[in-house]
Amino acid sequence: MAQQERAIRTRRVILQAAAEVFAERGYAATTVSDILKVAGVTKGALYFHFDSKKALAKGVLGVQTSLDVPAQNFRLQEMVDTAMVVAHRLSRDPVLRAGAKLSEDRDGRSQYGSAWPAWIELLTRYLVEAQQRNEVLAHVIPRETAEFVLTAFHGAQTYSHLEMDLADIEYRISVLFRHMLPSIAAPAVLANLDTAPDRGARVYAQLHREELQELQELHAG
Amino acid sequence: MAQQERAIRTRRVILQAAAEVFAERGYAATTVSDILKVAGVTKGALYFHFDSKKALAKGVLGVQTSLDVPAQNFRLQEMVDTAMVVAHRLSRDPVLRAGAKLSEDRDGRSQYGSAWPAWIELLTRYLVEAQQRNEVLAHVIPRETAEFVLTAFHGAQTYSHLEMDLADIEYRISVLFRHMLPSIAAPAVLANLDTAPDRGARVYAQLHREELQELQELHAG
Repeated sequence: MAQQERAIRTRRVILQAAAEVFAERGYAATTVSDILKVAGVTKGALYFHFDSKKALAKGVLGVQTSLDVPAQNFRLQEMVDTAMVVAHRLSRDPVLRAGAKLSEDRDGRSQYGSAWPAWIELLTRYLVEAQQRNEVLAHVIPRETAEFVLTAFHGAQTYSHLEMDLADIEYRISVLFRHMLPSIAAPAVLANLDTAPDRGARVYAQLHREELQELQELHAG
Repeated sequence: MAQQERAIRTRRVILQAAAEVFAERGYAATTVSDILKVAGVTKGALYFHFDSKKALAKGVLGVQTSLDVPAQNFRLQEMVDTAMVVAHRLSRDPVLRAGAKLSEDRDGRSQYGSAWPAWIELLTRYLVEAQQRNEVLAHVIPRETAEFVLTAFHGAQTYSHLEMDLADIEYRISVLFRHMLPSIAAPAVLANLDTAPDRGARVYAQLHREELQELQELHAG
């Protein structure tokens, strides 16, 4: 069991290192030994988990949507929270930045795929559930709206990255939701959605508190 | 006069060639001789107009927003038309594709700038005029909305380019406007805006007819 835990931790360290290097240099300019150096693990350990650069890219793409935001009164709020937490974490989390960088790499993505299908699926799921709960207007097509949110987010991220080194990304995602929610949300729901720029930071702090609490209960138990 | 016309035409041929190469290979991988080959002009002619690769990139960025859509009842429609014509022209016009490619190039743009300030300025101008004519809701901040439209357009373009070779870009820009106009347009205006995917093609055909007519009048006169 301890061995398995160590393996999980090593895998995470390697993916974090791979994400840092991919996010910084892009796929083509990255070598496995660059990632090895940053990860500080043995070659054997790395190849035990990932047998190629392509497998490392797939690994980084595979953990993009692992985030689980707390339940809210409205599924639309959970969709907003997911995007706002990602926006909040972007400048701190190389895994998310690498996800975008790898996904927009025309040559690379033909080998390892892209993070976008998983994000679109996640957003679509929130919207389908929002539809079942009558939170959205009748004309909404969940997948269409999900693709719109994903692509508009990516555009805002690209711009914010180039112009402001991501300093204003939370504001830009807040602007995105202010501009699109009125066209999809039922009025009574719309009036109760929180799209403030600091929403992501607050939800993330809550997630973190819950994790801490679980750890404390584990230790007390 | 004939000489001046020829110079203008040569300049246009060179910019078109530069755009083709920049759009295909990106700034770093492009050389002036690549552009020379595609343009089919003499080295002297090229250097008469543009003394460096950087000057060529600046030249391509300088002609991005030269498009002038026909006047409409609503300034918001003109803003929509501008974006929809660009969407319609993207797959046919290397100058527009090069504009995006050059603008998102982190290393290059520190030398030659980006197409985005000019687009944001143009969109802002439409929104300010729409505001003066009471076409938009009271809370709208023209520049904020303009930046949102630009970044959401860029994200849709990136996605459409990678996933569909731009085949669905007009549909995606139509989706963008359907998702954002209800949050900014006065209801009576909103009900009269045309955001159909083929809007760009129709407006462009009209522009083309007007140009043809002018040419015919010129020849008749």
